[in-house]
Amino acid sequence: MFNKRTDLALEARELWQETAERTTRLSGVKATKTKREGYPVTRVDILDERGEQALGKPQGSYLTIDLTTFWQRKADFFERAVRAVGSHLKELVPAEGPALVIGLGNAAMTPDAVGPLTAESVLVTRHLISAMPKHFAGFRPVSVFRTGVLGTTGVESAEAVRGLVAEIHPALVIAVDALASRRVGRVCATVQLSDTGIIPGSGVGNHRSALNAETLGVPVFAVGIPTVVDAATLAADLLEEAGVEDISEEKLRSAEASMMVTPRDIDAQVRDLSKVVGYGINWALQDLEIDEMNALLS
Amino acid sequence: MFNKRTDLALEARELWQETAERTTRLSGVKATKTKREGYPVTRVDILDERGEQALGKPQGSYLTIDLTTFWQRKADFFERAVRAVGSHLKELVPAEGPALVIGLGNAAMTPDAVGPLTAESVLVTRHLISAMPKHFAGFRPVSVFRTGVLGTTGVESAEAVRGLVAEIHPALVIAVDALASRRVGRVCATVQLSDTGIIPGSGVGNHRSALNAETLGVPVFAVGIPTVVDAATLAADLLEEAGVEDISEEKLRSAEASMMVTPRDIDAQVRDLSKVVGYGINWALQDLEIDEMNALLS
Amino acid sequence: MFNKRTDLALEARELWQETAERTTRLSGVKATKTKREGYPVTRVDILDERGEQALGKPQGSYLTIDLTTFWQRKADFFERAVRAVGSHLKELVPAEGPALVIGLGNAAMTPDAVGPLTAESVLVTRHLISAMPKHFAGFRPVSVFRTGVLGTTGVESAEAVRGLVAEIHPALVIAVDALASRRVGRVCATVQLSDTGIIPGSGVGNHRSALNAETLGVPVFAVGIPTVVDAATLAADLLEEAGVEDISEEKLRSAEASMMVTPRDIDAQVRDLSKVVGYGINWALQDLEIDEMNALLS
Amino acid sequence: MFNKRTDLALEARELWQETAERTTRLSGVKATKTKREGYPVTRVDILDERGEQALGKPQGSYLTIDLTTFWQRKADFFERAVRAVGSHLKELVPAEGPALVIGLGNAAMTPDAVGPLTAESVLVTRHLISAMPKHFAGFRPVSVFRTGVLGTTGVESAEAVRGLVAEIHPALVIAVDALASRRVGRVCATVQLSDTGIIPGSGVGNHRSALNAETLGVPVFAVGIPTVVDAATLAADLLEEAGVEDISEEKLRSAEASMMVTPRDIDAQVRDLSKVVGYGINWALQDLEIDEMNALLS
Repeated sequence: MFNKRTDLALEARELWQETAERTTRLSGVKATKTKREGYPVTRVDILDERGEQALGKPQGSYLTIDLTTFWQRKADFFERAVRAVGSHLKELVPAEGPALVIGLGNAAMTPDAVGPLTAESVLVTRHLISAMPKHFAGFRPVSVFRTGVLGTTGVESAEAVRGLVAEIHPALVIAVDALASRRVGRVCATVQLSDTGIIPGSGVGNHRSALNAETLGVPVFAVGIPTVVDAATLAADLLEEAGVEDISEEKLRSAEASMMVTPRDIDAQVRDLSKVVGYGINWALQDLEIDEMNALLS
Repeated sequence: MFNKRTDLALEARELWQETAERTTRLSGVKATKTKREGYPVTRVDILDERGEQALGKPQGSYLTIDLTTFWQRKADFFERAVRAVGSHLKELVPAEGPALVIGLGNAAMTPDAVGPLTAESVLVTRHLISAMPKHFAGFRPVSVFRTGVLGTTGVESAEAVRGLVAEIHPALVIAVDALASRRVGRVCATVQLSDTGIIPGSGVGNHRSALNAETLGVPVFAVGIPTVVDAATLAADLLEEAGVEDISEEKLRSAEASMMVTPRDIDAQVRDLSKVVGYGINWALQDLEIDEMNALLS
Repeated sequence: MFNKRTDLALEARELWQETAERTTRLSGVKATKTKREGYPVTRVDILDERGEQALGKPQGSYLTIDLTTFWQRKADFFERAVRAVGSHLKELVPAEGPALVIGLGNAAMTPDAVGPLTAESVLVTRHLISAMPKHFAGFRPVSVFRTGVLGTTGVESAEAVRGLVAEIHPALVIAVDALASRRVGRVCATVQLSDTGIIPGSGVGNHRSALNAETLGVPVFAVGIPTVVDAATLAADLLEEAGVEDISEEKLRSAEASMMVTPRDIDAQVRDLSKVVGYGINWALQDLEIDEMNALLS
Repeated sequence: MFNKRTDLALEARELWQETAERTTRLSGVKATKTKREGYPVTRVDILDERGEQALGKPQGSYLTIDLTTFWQRKADFFERAVRAVGSHLKELVPAEGPALVIGLGNAAMTPDAVGPLTAESVLVTRHLISAMPKHFAGFRPVSVFRTGVLGTTGVESAEAVRGLVAEIHPALVIAVDALASRRVGRVCATVQLSDTGIIPGSGVGNHRSALNAETLGVPVFAVGIPTVVDAATLAADLLEEAGVEDISEEKLRSAEASMMVTPRDIDAQVRDLSKVVGYGINWALQDLEIDEMNALLS
């Protein structure tokens, strides 16, 4: 069977359901749909080990906010998207204590630049509170770390983050990364939040490389933006839809081995959505209006 | 019938041949295969109006150099690729007179940045020869123009180039642009040279916008690098291969309207191949070894 | 005598006045001081040939707007600075007809990047009006040209601009460039407007290289921002102030030949002031509020 | 008395000697001059507490390599400069064990970008040796960390480095930073090596912020490139030279408070010299020829 690639819990659940053999109910997984600020939100809770095995992801909550209409640019779209992402994240994270925001990924590769770009829009306050405690009394301490990539640092992201966490003792970590989706329509149009941590660079089963409560000793929240579709996965979906069975993984992979599908204007879309996420993080962590964020970040 | 998109004459010919109805010979088109520096080269000559209509491209010669093995990085691969591109271009262009190199496309959008990136590696000599004629006696005058994109200039590339050509009177123009291919395997792995000029931004039938001998009054040579596959074209090819007929253009286009397929490491590939093309242009225009280009461009 | 360098008419007048020999009145030059939006404005009018010779600049009006307090960042400072620059420029330029904005200088050298950076904030409308005349009926056609620098183009800025003007026929040209001041206090803190055109790269007496009504056939307005002080000029001023006479030009120049004095945070200051100038140009040319410019440029 | 600013031990010694009151010998400091690869090298050893107090720097060795002639670009200048820097650094650092290279400073501010730019030219090998120990048997493990700046991280460079050192246990640290010189002639023309560690951002007496053997638990070597002259220091030097006494610090500082003197082409000079330093570090740490570094870094 062709192994379709996705980093979204929502899609992992869809894939489970699509498989012809599934006549039984998917137990250990609960899914609910709501709306916020006009944007549809799907919540997938993986409740136990059966759920973990079925979806291939750790227990916890995964929220997917569908910002597709973001790109239709109605009035207030930016503010509404920030509130939708920010208010959900606020419900997940502890209400107090210093936060460390991690920008994962490669600033020099557009589809992988979500983490470093988001970092540009996060209000960095830890040093200000430390230097001028009275002046910044109303702020929560936030620091930011851009891990870079292994090829230019020689250090695993998880190693570098562990060292920093041990030194500055945040109460929580928020890790931001680019994801792969299965559906073209979700690329640069959805945001996934989870309370389960993250395995940088599309989980390769290396437990030491995970950023989660177990490895860091503090709760780790993940914010992911799908920026690509694996070309072979897209091809397999198309062929299935057209009634073709017997899809050879080997053949599809050989042809499109290292290919991805992205929007033509991915540079602009990644930049815009990263700003939504950065402001959403500020919304979750600080008690500020968007105008105030604009003023502080300019 | 689904309308597959390609900017390569080689692929336009393939598409013609694949069409079921073609029982007749393709007249007005000649194709030949050779090798240079170990790289396969396909030459498609469009000889008359029948050829023009069949392939949807103007009369002239189109050479496609297959650098796939470039990425296997054997010894001397860069030098060999430069010589393969440069020596073919040298055979096309007039042996004397000042040259103007045009970098078309958007430096801020990676798959469209081939033109501006190539411009970085072209030896600019016109001002040096003018200021120090004796010192630079051995060089051919070369100037470079980056057109930028309509959204940030308000001026069509063709208008700006016409104005410049009328002012500085080059003997020939070489225009460099990104192309769309139909095959994943050709993306960032082939270079197309032609003596027919170019219509910037994938020919929209706007005659005024063409850069060619007719609109500029001097011979115009085009150097194109495919950097993307139209996602809908890729999908249609896959479905056909799998035996699916009756492919609905509407459906494919709606889903992947603005999607493209690119290599995951497109930033690096576009940068490396643009350097090959820039050096290849130097090879065609100047009497220099690659080491000498390195020294002059550092 | 040491030859002090400045591109500001205001300072050329100061230098004339400081020279010990001047016992006579400076005839052919008129200077007046006003305020706008709280910012001091000095207007120097060079009225005839005597004025031209005394100040070494062509006849015409030169306005210097002192934005020093810009950096004190009072409420509305950005809006006030835009209005101060924009409303003065609006009084200089013709009320109708298409405009071409020229960004002179080197985007890769911070103190010389004022032109290209300003270009980023200019509303480009010519292509929109042409494509959708009804939709953009209220806008004035504006196009933008970044000349780049001789070393990377091989073409003099003036040649390239002449070619473009002949092709697209603007009613006026606004050229933006970095200037040298004599006073540290004016660096990144003042804007000079003039109706006399400009000689790119600090006037070298090459008449063909001038951008003015004579060479382009349309009125040319210059907007300049001082970003550096010539280090030798600063030194000479300091020594004079300290009572040292007999300053050897040779000695000062040998030491600091290619040195300049700039603010430590020049990257940020140049970026911020270029945005003021870009928006000021929009203010002068379009009938828009600053909020509307923000929306159109985002 | 005016307080002249310098980060070079060489200049701290000059300043001590110039002071009129010094009739005694400077004890606790030893200076020697040699040449390497044709470049003059000055070594200042601070031997004890008297030396520390006189020069305001910690005990240890400081080597200043004068690359002025680097810019004359004789044959092999790059190779010779790399060997001059690299061979001296090799003599300072331990012969074995993993190294961590720290790029201090702000990549977005040219005169402060020496650290991050150097990091681009350092061979990063730690992850390769770990993944393919046999293939990379001949290499020394090297990792690289770019600290960023406080305003965008919220974390002191020293905190972040301490955390990383505790996690990955290097045998030595090499920290690269931009310096301030007192002499225009030394800017972008000299390299200072020392075995004393470094206080990021021009020593403010904050002991916790130092990167040295005491705070990190491993030997710390510093590589510094002067990229600016403090404008007030330059002015004071000029006035003294001209015989002016009684220089008011207040007055000079008020005028040029935040001004610096740099070369006009600082972007290019900082880039070129950072590459020399990066390759010099490779020379000191790896057993490679420059050609091999080129191949591995391309």
